[in-house]
Amino acid sequence: MKQAQTIFDIHTKGQGLYEFTREVTFWAGQQAIVRGLLTLFIRHTSASLTIQENADPDVQYDLNNFFRRVVEENPSLYRHTCEGPDDMPAHIRSALTDVQLSIPMVHGSLALGTWQGIYLFEHRAMAHDRQVVAHLLGE
Amino acid sequence: MKQAQTIFDIHTKGQGLYEFTREVTFWAGQQAIVRGLLTLFIRHTSASLTIQENADPDVQYDLNNFFRRVVEENPSLYRHTCEGPDDMPAHIRSALTDVQLSIPMVHGSLALGTWQGIYLFEHRAMAHDRQVVAHLLGE
Amino acid sequence: MKQAQTIFDIHTKGQGLYEFTREVTFWAGQQAIVRGLLTLFIRHTSASLTIQENADPDVQYDLNNFFRRVVEENPSLYRHTCEGPDDMPAHIRSALTDVQLSIPMVHGSLALGTWQGIYLFEHRAMAHDRQVVAHLLGE
Repeated sequence: MKQAQTIFDIHTKGQGLYEFTREVTFWAGQQAIVRGLLTLFIRHTSASLTIQENADPDVQYDLNNFFRRVVEENPSLYRHTCEGPDDMPAHIRSALTDVQLSIPMVHGSLALGTWQGIYLFEHRAMAHDRQVVAHLLGE
Repeated sequence: MKQAQTIFDIHTKGQGLYEFTREVTFWAGQQAIVRGLLTLFIRHTSASLTIQENADPDVQYDLNNFFRRVVEENPSLYRHTCEGPDDMPAHIRSALTDVQLSIPMVHGSLALGTWQGIYLFEHRAMAHDRQVVAHLLGE
Repeated sequence: MKQAQTIFDIHTKGQGLYEFTREVTFWAGQQAIVRGLLTLFIRHTSASLTIQENADPDVQYDLNNFFRRVVEENPSLYRHTCEGPDDMPAHIRSALTDVQLSIPMVHGSLALGTWQGIYLFEHRAMAHDRQVVAHLLGE
């Protein structure tokens, strides 16, 4: 049984989904692990992770739009407003999605379904540098 | 330390929760692992996983109803409508629940609480065949 | 490769977030594991886990307030009302947040970001004794 770890650095430019499936798949494939478990963990509280359909870009637009509608950027709703009107909504959107994803590796590949892509979900309006820690365990 | 993997095939018949705790518990119990970690991963973006109370079936009804109310099947809200009015809401409901669950094994049993059941949460209106990959690691 | 397990007992006094980052960090640090994966699993369906900003307490207030607003304690919306008006909303809020969190250990420390704290999110109005199972794997 062995382990491998790395960090994916992802630069974002405003709210929306940023796919990094290819980067994860490539790195995992290099570790010579046939069966195992990959874990991704984002080191932030105003951006998150999610697995979504990667066929139609409208899905990503609609998903972001839903979260903008349900978690309003209305300062009168929040006490924590000192970091801008998009900060507290970003924390809530992060709580509603995922800080971490674990995906089994089967026969040397991640067990993702045909249409599943791995996304960083940026919830802040401005550009940010985000870090996702990857941990792979298996043999 | 050893690993075991399998796939649970679950046939769904419309929106709602489908419990498969017994299948998971039975399979995990057969692997002769006393301490470890079980991970379940669903290979779809319009059905998800959740752990919920399994005592009163009304809980499952109310949970499904909440998601139907908050994530509306109203095509005017979405761009991605080509796969039917229930498709984009299904993606959003999946993002709000879980694509993956990890449960420790303690003294040879899953560490589930007394009332916790493992459910596949189907978000599409039509029948579907769903796959959940299981990965167990321990000794 | 080795494993360690424990249970964190957390006493809650009504709805809100209860941080236990320090307890988790202290226990994990004692296991002499340099690289690995920590998993936390809550054994309840009316309290959950979340990772949130731990700098400004207003963030925790606003987060709890958002869930109170979106998942209403209005018995006319639910069938499952026998355990009190806060019980079914507690199940829904649990489904929207996390039953489990996995965090990589890197260079002997949890890979948490600077502002990330680990919280138990209590969704019931009355005091409760909650159990969180911890599982650590690594070497």
